Parts: sequence; structure tokens; C-alpha cells
Amino acid sequence: MSIKEMIKDHPAVGADYNDALGEAVKHAMYCAAICNSCVDACSAEDMDMSECIRKCSDASDICQTVSRVAARRTHGNTAVIKSLLETCIVACKICAEECAKHDNPHCQRCAKMCRECVEDCVAARDSMLEAA
Amino acid sequence: MSIKEMIKDHPAVGADYNDALGEAVKHAMYCAAICNSCVDACSAEDMDMSECIRKCSDASDICQTVSRVAARRTHGNTAVIKSLLETCIVACKICAEECAKHDNPHCQRCAKMCRECVEDCVAARDSMLEAA
Amino acid sequence: MSIKEMIKDHPAVGADYNDALGEAVKHAMYCAAICNSCVDACSAEDMDMSECIRKCSDASDICQTVSRVAARRTHGNTAVIKSLLETCIVACKICAEECAKHDNPHCQRCAKMCRECVEDCVAARDSMLEAA
Amino acid sequence: MSIKEMIKDHPAVGADYNDALGEAVKHAMYCAAICNSCVDACSAEDMDMSECIRKCSDASDICQTVSRVAARRTHGNTAVIKSLLETCIVACKICAEECAKHDNPHCQRCAKMCRECVEDCVAARDSMLEAA
Repeated sequence: MSIKEMIKDHPAVGADYNDALGEAVKHAMYCAAICNSCVDACSAEDMDMSECIRKCSDASDICQTVSRVAARRTHGNTAVIKSLLETCIVACKICAEECAKHDNPHCQRCAKMCRECVEDCVAARDSMLEAA
Repeated sequence: MSIKEMIKDHPAVGADYNDALGEAVKHAMYCAAICNSCVDACSAEDMDMSECIRKCSDASDICQTVSRVAARRTHGNTAVIKSLLETCIVACKICAEECAKHDNPHCQRCAKMCRECVEDCVAARDSMLEAA
Repeated sequence: MSIKEMIKDHPAVGADYNDALGEAVKHAMYCAAICNSCVDACSAEDMDMSECIRKCSDASDICQTVSRVAARRTHGNTAVIKSLLETCIVACKICAEECAKHDNPHCQRCAKMCRECVEDCVAARDSMLEAA
Repeated sequence: MSIKEMIKDHPAVGADYNDALGEAVKHAMYCAAICNSCVDACSAEDMDMSECIRKCSDASDICQTVSRVAARRTHGNTAVIKSLLETCIVACKICAEECAKHDNPHCQRCAKMCRECVEDCVAARDSMLEAA
């Protein structure tokens, strides 16, 4: 099942489908889930993971909101999407830096996911600046 | 990037990984995104789609919560997961029935997604009953 | 600003306003916020609070969904609301029991909030059974 | 039950409690609920409310994330909070302008709530700029 195909089914999208934005929606959805899972796994580690819990919690909430807001295609609201993508870039960069400090497999996977999400959000933001 | 692989990275999971539950987490994540997108597409249709908007909105919120809660593996909380899976089965059945009434491609896709999510939640719930 | 007054402003509510359900919406909204804050405060404590983090995280997500789903008044969807209230009762009872074990002020406050949320969800569920 | 008192219960807050930020958390929580309810009420109106549904949906999701992220006090993450407050200001301004166009009581109430949320987020952002 594809969220990108679903966006194309919107009655007003047609030829205006923005693939960079669709990619950001898809990876923000994954990143929200991965960061949520990393919070849970961090809380079960023996060492103090409180900073990682904080940064993954914030990234998860913000990515989830990106996956909902940026998937909508009724009446644009592009100023909001652009600002939210900027916030997501900040949150995922910080989360990736923190997770990269820890050797355990869930933090390494989360750091990789966050870096990919940053790249996609940057590309989506740039595609919207060109369109404006 | 795989949410199922991420769950296996949890320090306490090891041999206890429940694939039926992992599958439910993954598809609830997709279903939350598809239903959210269907709400948006329905609001752009010319006809009255208010009942579909309602049922997709509820299914989206509940699926999103399943994808977060059922992904956690620290200290179980299995009674909560089981009850939430039951709620998700109810919400997605009702949403699938409503979406199936509409010929547009986004509702047809959403109905299919909701039926798959019901199947996965049923399988996950049954796997937890056996385990108990 | 009152969420209960807002629900009364819905074009279809009128004389059918259910105050027990409105009360559950309001307190589930608060409980979601209190539990989210308790997760954060628990992660900053010196002792192992992983079980409390888990149970508060689940209760927060579920309460947030109650506050969104049970506030809607377009086309009922009462079977979903009733099932979700049951899940919220389970999640908040378990969270209240866990938080009550800890002497710190945030857990004591969270336990109290969860017990109030359980009472409100029970009253709301019973009001819907009578109405059915 | 007070989310502001709850934030003060965090083990690391003490004298550093920021009341402007606490106020923004509280009103973003309310605004998320009011906007979610406005989406539902708009979908039940006879006229085309699709633009209002879109803008309230986005504002609700973003306010909800503010109420979760900005309530956390473990390890700061202030760059993320500041960026998210900016996004919330954009989303709530746009939502208030759209809702203000409609005479029905739910849109009038939602416009008022969004304007208050903008004021609180501006004050919270400014308090964090001074602190930096």
C-alpha cells in the first residue's frame, strides 16, 4: 500500500503531483515510527539515555505531524507545510546527531532514518520554493 | 527502512519477537496515513462525504495510536495492546464499509487498506491470546 | 476556552448534548498532556522508571485519541467511541497503579489524573449504554 | 488539573520555570482540541467548508505537537521548540483568518482560540530569544 499513490488519487492533484513532497511524507511517516520505537528501546537500556529519549520523542511527534499535514492537498496551505518542513529538518538533524553517539543497533538505525528524513525534507522544501 | 526490524533491535526482544504484532504495527502505520489522506480527499469532493470524513478521521487516529503503542516492547502492557487492537478492528471495519460505498479511487484504496488492517489486527490479537 | 462549549456549537448537537461524554473528552485531553509530561519527568529521574515511562506513554497516546475521536459529533460512530473508552479505562487504570508506586510529585499528580480520567470514561461509557 | 503545575514538578525545572512557555503549552493543548472539533463541525455544515477543514486540520495537528514537545523539560532541545513555535504561529494565523470568514459559532470560537494561541506562542518564542 502506497501513501504516494494515495496522494495522486486526490481529486485536485492530477498533473500537479509533487514527488519530492510525496517522498518526504512517506519517510516522515517511517521516521515517526522509528523514533517512537527508539524512545521505547532507549528506556530499556541500562545506561542514561534521557537525552536520546528527549530528542527522539520530539522528532517522532514532529515527523508524525509532517506525515499528516504534508499529505493533504485540499487548498494548498503551502506556507504551513514549508515552515513545518524547516522544523522537521531541525528536529531530525539534532536527533540524528544524538543517536549517532550510541553504538546500540536501534540508535544506529534511528540516526540513519533521521538523516534520510532530513534529506527528503530539504528536497521537498526546495521543490516548494521553486514552485512559489 | 523497516519498523519490524527496528522492533527486533529492542534490547529485550530477542527470541520473543511476535511477527503478527509487528505486521499489525506496520499496517496500522500505513492505514493511519491512508485514512488521513482519504479525509482530505473526501473534503475536496463535490458530494456530501461527511460520514466518510468522520469514519476515516476516527480510524486514522486509532490506527496511529496502534502503530505507536503496539510497537513498544518495554514491560509488555499487553492488556492495553489487546484492548486497543479490538478498538482498531471495530474502527477499521466501519471505515471499510463506508469507504466501499464510494466509487472514487481514494475511497476504494482506503477500504482495501482498512480491510487489510483488520486482518492484521485480528491475527495479532489471536497471537497474544495464545501467548497468554 | 471550553471544549465542552465547542461541542455544543456543532450544527447537529442541540438538545442531544451528552455532558458525561463532554467531561470525558475534556479530562482525556488533560490526561494526555499530564501523562506526556510524566514520561519526560520520569526519564530525568535517577532511578529506573522504564515501566512508568511505558505505561504513561501508552496512556498519553490513547487519551489523546479519546479527546479527538469522542469530541466528534458528525454521524455518531458510537460503537467506536464505546470501544475506545473501554481501552482508555484499561490504559489509565494500569498507568495510575504504576504511578502510585512512586513518591515523586509528577507521578503522584499523574496517578490522580489517571484515576479521574477512568471515572469520567466509565460515566461516559455508561451514558452511551443507556442511550443505546 | 494543571499542565503548568505538572511542568513545575519536573525534577530539573525548579527556579527555571518559564511561565510564557507554560502558557503556550496550555493554550496549544486547547487549540488542538478546538480546531479538531471545528473540522468535525465544518464537515456537517451544508456549505463548502473544505478550505476551513484543511486549515483547522493542519492547525490542530501542529498545536497538538506543540503541547507535547514544548511541555518537555529534559535536556532542553530549545532550537526545536523555537522552530515549532514559529510554525504554530503561521498555522494558527492562517486558520484564524479562514475561520473568521464564517459566521457560525464554532468557527467564531475557533478563530478566537487561534488568535490567543498565536499571542501565547509569540510571547513564548520571545521569552526564549531573551533567554538565549
